[in-house]
Amino acid sequence: MKAARIYGAKDIRIEDVDIPDPEDDQVQIKVKYCGICGSDLHAYLQGWGLPKEPHPITGRTLPITLGHEFSGQVVKLGKNVSNLKIGDKVAIEPVIACGECENCRKGQYNLCIKAQAKDGAGNFLGFSQDGGFAEYANVKSVFAHKLPAGMNYEIGALAEPTAVVYEALKRSRLRAGQDVAIMGAGPIGLLMALLARIAGANHIFIVDLSEVRLHKAEELGFINTINPGKEDAAETIKGVLPNGVDIAYEAAGVQATFDTALKVTKRGGTLQIVALFGRPITFDMTKDLIMQGINIITTICYNNSFPQVLGILNNNKDLFDKIITKKISLDQLVDQGIKEISADKQQVKILVSAED
Amino acid sequence: MKAARIYGAKDIRIEDVDIPDPEDDQVQIKVKYCGICGSDLHAYLQGWGLPKEPHPITGRTLPITLGHEFSGQVVKLGKNVSNLKIGDKVAIEPVIACGECENCRKGQYNLCIKAQAKDGAGNFLGFSQDGGFAEYANVKSVFAHKLPAGMNYEIGALAEPTAVVYEALKRSRLRAGQDVAIMGAGPIGLLMALLARIAGANHIFIVDLSEVRLHKAEELGFINTINPGKEDAAETIKGVLPNGVDIAYEAAGVQATFDTALKVTKRGGTLQIVALFGRPITFDMTKDLIMQGINIITTICYNNSFPQVLGILNNNKDLFDKIITKKISLDQLVDQGIKEISADKQQVKILVSAED
Repeated sequence: MKAARIYGAKDIRIEDVDIPDPEDDQVQIKVKYCGICGSDLHAYLQGWGLPKEPHPITGRTLPITLGHEFSGQVVKLGKNVSNLKIGDKVAIEPVIACGECENCRKGQYNLCIKAQAKDGAGNFLGFSQDGGFAEYANVKSVFAHKLPAGMNYEIGALAEPTAVVYEALKRSRLRAGQDVAIMGAGPIGLLMALLARIAGANHIFIVDLSEVRLHKAEELGFINTINPGKEDAAETIKGVLPNGVDIAYEAAGVQATFDTALKVTKRGGTLQIVALFGRPITFDMTKDLIMQGINIITTICYNNSFPQVLGILNNNKDLFDKIITKKISLDQLVDQGIKEISADKQQVKILVSAED
Repeated sequence: MKAARIYGAKDIRIEDVDIPDPEDDQVQIKVKYCGICGSDLHAYLQGWGLPKEPHPITGRTLPITLGHEFSGQVVKLGKNVSNLKIGDKVAIEPVIACGECENCRKGQYNLCIKAQAKDGAGNFLGFSQDGGFAEYANVKSVFAHKLPAGMNYEIGALAEPTAVVYEALKRSRLRAGQDVAIMGAGPIGLLMALLARIAGANHIFIVDLSEVRLHKAEELGFINTINPGKEDAAETIKGVLPNGVDIAYEAAGVQATFDTALKVTKRGGTLQIVALFGRPITFDMTKDLIMQGINIITTICYNNSFPQVLGILNNNKDLFDKIITKKISLDQLVDQGIKEISADKQQVKILVSAED
């Protein structure tokens, strides 16, 4: 089968590889669509998250088939699989976890202790185990979630990035009626805004330097968009809400947006981190955080949330459909896909199809 | 009456001043004991927390009578007071709050929005309203809490600093059986350790560079004391608990202890800030926090907790008595008190008596 395998930074090869039979607890999926994530870009550019030594759970090193936002159809069953049947349409939760450590037993398998690679390799398919930029993939059957009836594979491929922001939503404990601000209108920021609206947030401010991205936010129905290159975001938000917002979602991951997020959060509010940060962050703990009663809540991946996320996607198919801005073939992955998500700010989610 | 009034940094004067009658919702307290806090030292050394312009709620500027950790006896009642009678022994919750803003209505009066002074003045008695280093003080009757029967005024004066760490305990959501590490064995660190033990923590590691302070911790019955000048604190803790502690309490407030606190917190654990930080803090959000699933929870002052705190003190009087290391008179406040708490690490809590 064809697969896009990464050998290191700036070295992705579309190759013909064998696909083994699924293990006893796995199903084999014919991949239909696999979305491109910002972390795929970082893997490509800097080798971020790739295993340099054998991963503690999978034992895998490079090369690895990239891709972790995928949907597909079940074509083979491992002998112990009872929750799925051949022909089922599924979205993949691309988890690598031991299932036995303290955190796995707590249900926090996204924080699996054994899966922590010393070299920082990501503990999900597409990083430390073969992923979805391929014609077929083998996945644990419990992490293959059936699509609701009538959901297409394109929307199914959005389950993973939506689960990322859903976890941030859970951890921030947003209640309907609260006010939020979202730093960044990239794919994660826009998905965060959509989920905040679905969860009943009152005011939703979206802050980004890119007019193109803010325009996309407006297309999705958000009216409170702010370009901090043109106006002071904190002043604008406090003009509407003098005390600030209940929750600021940091979906940009740089010092400037972090600072703005702190400024617009009300006394006693929450700063919810959603994005990864490329550089160290500095702030005044006493003045900015303690005296304001603000907590910093983090999130990474997701646990036990794909059924809820698929329900949300199914109830809002037309809305999430607008997030998909391009579809390409596997051969176009690097030039028309990975490179494009940073170069072309019109792009929100690019889906890759492995089918001819 | 005699009162210790601060006019600015390094300018505390023991003066003879009038005490007005209590307002309708106030009681007048004959102060028995008032403890010295690290923040009194910072007010004295750098003018920290003092009002440079009229405080938004009290309208007060300097000079102010210092002192916010006090107990005393009710000697006069304002005409609307019904919860107390003359002769009652009380511990004072030294709150300044509007009682009307969003946060006050939520019960978070420690984060009162109106009480936020632009100049950073503290919103408690002893900073922006006259406090307890005096013979008498007027306080709102609802913030004067009756001592349990048989509790002496010395223990009563510990209610305020104990409430500070009790709030950190509440916000960290410590459950019995969990493991904790405490950075710093000063007064706040030791009180935090005592409360963690009372709350049923399993392992309690206490980290401090001062052998004198660690010895005090050992006197209080703590066996897991660590001097990071002599051993690697993270290595020692992970030698006992390979995954780390559930909660690290940061009661020292500097970069080095903050870094250690992050290192010893388990994946998915909590970093609870207790101390104020004198300088900006820097860390790697992605590696240190996000990938570890760690949240940073802050705390400032307390709300709705004095009754619980007085109950805890009353159940553990002998233990908390060991925290009181010295008693001085009001005339000795600066030389034998405020200067001593930084110079003499033997001292945990110095109490000041205004009585002759």
